[in-house]
Amino acid sequence: MKKVRIGIIGLGNMGTGHAQYLAKGEVEGAELTAISDPRPERLQWAAETLGDGVQRYEDPEALLTSGSIDGVLICTPHYSHPELAIQAFRNSLHVLIEKPAGVHTRQVREMNEEASRSGLVFGIMYNQRTNPMYRKLREMIRQGELGEIRRLNWIITDWYRSQSYYNSGGWRASWAGEGGGVLINQAPHQLDLWQWTTGMMPKRIRAFCSFGKHRDIEVENEVTAYAEYENGATAVFITSTCETPGTNRFEVTGDRGKIVMEGGRMTFWRNEKSETEFNATYTGGFGQPEYQTVEIPLEPGEGEQHKGITKDWVQAIQSGTPLLAPGEEGIKGLMLSNAMLLSAWTDDWAELPLDEDLFYNLLQERIRTSGGVQS
Amino acid sequence: MKKVRIGIIGLGNMGTGHAQYLAKGEVEGAELTAISDPRPERLQWAAETLGDGVQRYEDPEALLTSGSIDGVLICTPHYSHPELAIQAFRNSLHVLIEKPAGVHTRQVREMNEEASRSGLVFGIMYNQRTNPMYRKLREMIRQGELGEIRRLNWIITDWYRSQSYYNSGGWRASWAGEGGGVLINQAPHQLDLWQWTTGMMPKRIRAFCSFGKHRDIEVENEVTAYAEYENGATAVFITSTCETPGTNRFEVTGDRGKIVMEGGRMTFWRNEKSETEFNATYTGGFGQPEYQTVEIPLEPGEGEQHKGITKDWVQAIQSGTPLLAPGEEGIKGLMLSNAMLLSAWTDDWAELPLDEDLFYNLLQERIRTSGGVQS
Repeated sequence: MKKVRIGIIGLGNMGTGHAQYLAKGEVEGAELTAISDPRPERLQWAAETLGDGVQRYEDPEALLTSGSIDGVLICTPHYSHPELAIQAFRNSLHVLIEKPAGVHTRQVREMNEEASRSGLVFGIMYNQRTNPMYRKLREMIRQGELGEIRRLNWIITDWYRSQSYYNSGGWRASWAGEGGGVLINQAPHQLDLWQWTTGMMPKRIRAFCSFGKHRDIEVENEVTAYAEYENGATAVFITSTCETPGTNRFEVTGDRGKIVMEGGRMTFWRNEKSETEFNATYTGGFGQPEYQTVEIPLEPGEGEQHKGITKDWVQAIQSGTPLLAPGEEGIKGLMLSNAMLLSAWTDDWAELPLDEDLFYNLLQERIRTSGGVQS
Repeated sequence: MKKVRIGIIGLGNMGTGHAQYLAKGEVEGAELTAISDPRPERLQWAAETLGDGVQRYEDPEALLTSGSIDGVLICTPHYSHPELAIQAFRNSLHVLIEKPAGVHTRQVREMNEEASRSGLVFGIMYNQRTNPMYRKLREMIRQGELGEIRRLNWIITDWYRSQSYYNSGGWRASWAGEGGGVLINQAPHQLDLWQWTTGMMPKRIRAFCSFGKHRDIEVENEVTAYAEYENGATAVFITSTCETPGTNRFEVTGDRGKIVMEGGRMTFWRNEKSETEFNATYTGGFGQPEYQTVEIPLEPGEGEQHKGITKDWVQAIQSGTPLLAPGEEGIKGLMLSNAMLLSAWTDDWAELPLDEDLFYNLLQERIRTSGGVQS
């Protein structure tokens, strides 16, 4: 089978990582044939590390129209993901974008529409979907092991970032440069897994954000969000970049028991009767269903992560297999993120689907007065 | 030293328990001399179990004016705690009330004022204050082991109650009978410990309550509350009586580390440098303070619980020692509880100190249409 010729736009932290495993031939069926980056030092790095077999462009458009690639990894700053993806689709290229899908859902919706028209393979780098623990959670929920979901609680506060991290780039943690803070940069993985593992999107969100807490930055770096679902379930999502050592604990409670994921372990408390059945038949006053406590065995490690997503995307291009992380699904986590900011900005509920124009307008106000460097 | 003669008003679950250990002489310096209960079967139980050495009254007022007691344990339904306590103080009796202090802070404030005027010993049955784990937490926070508190998260959802429990009394889980649900009946201990261990009361609360979720009851049985403090700290408090098996996990994050209490264990992640100091001096971009993980050794068990509080109160009467659980402090946990309901009823922030009259009026509206039996 002919190899998929891959280009990479943007040789920052993520793009460099992708270039290295692709250049080493670690993704079967794929070859890295071109990159683009406007920065001379990154192009020099590419020349020295990747060699002249990989074409180099300053300008992404030159790469997209070069005819030297079949698909492209977009690893640029957040704002540009949708625009570059749309250009790529118009050049008949398959696309794999880094997370987040974009900064606001309006631009991401346009990207998704273009992807759909193109019929090309569109993926997003939700590498945490390769983690065996979250895959297992999704499978167990889909198989009904927990029964109807009642409550979710994710404390994901281990995204510690010091002031020196924020100072390392003028675009960092600014409305103009990144369009948000922890919700757009660090927590998009958990915002994706939150809805991907459970298959549920909230109907409304009430969130509380701290902007520049203990840090000299513009954007949110601590968030507590409360969500309500159509079936009556509720959820709390807490994230922070300014506490240490943080926590990563996801608790999912259902009619038939509870699963807690923390410290790489996954524990299932399985009710012998569902809560609904127990409650309907029990006559003893105090009392609750019997349960078993089960440690769920997991494949060791966190899965193939970034490389796994790239492999999956290449396989989809070659064989038409379904994607683990379809690009169109990027809008879901982003909508949760946008809803949290909107709720905090308006000090009110944010209903879903989101009022995209209101979010867009309030974001533009912040960009206009932002001290950050546009990226 | 002369023994303290003790009376008990109300021989329900709690009053009966207190009567038994007092009758067995398990509280040094105290003797049970009288009880009151309007129910013939409870008086019969008292006659058979406690004997004629313990006087029996149908009417609490007769007990309070009998001259046969020096102090009284008030173990009646919630609404009557303040009124009976006030009567007791006016009869120069020391008072130990069951939790909650009352149903709304207005009546509790009157009780506290009367207690203060009387100069008598006023305690509240916050038996969880005897638990070595929570005492240790309070001590560690007061000694500055955690530095400034940044975030609190308490998931206390192991208060499971089936419909058959609620059906066991016409007053249960109704506005007229109890004046609330999980916040007034089950979770008052945690609402007390939340502020007692940390020494902090929020400045405002935004709470989300489900009323009669999966149960045929009037009152709240699932609560998610978000709180903000003067120093910028935030908190989440989640409680429920309709999920099983529940969780009891309290996480306290500070500038110098984190403490998590779950499953009877208390774990301390101690930063080698405070977060503030690390952040001010670190220049490496990614990176976080080194830390040690310490299991905090605890006395086995949960302390002396109810009997411990009664002993402490008797000792305070005899020797003037400070109380572990002063009655006046009951208003704090109750204010948190009232604020959560008020926020949910008004779908808005509840500022603290609370608008007591607004809460009182909204509660009266619910009592007027309540289907519950007044208690």
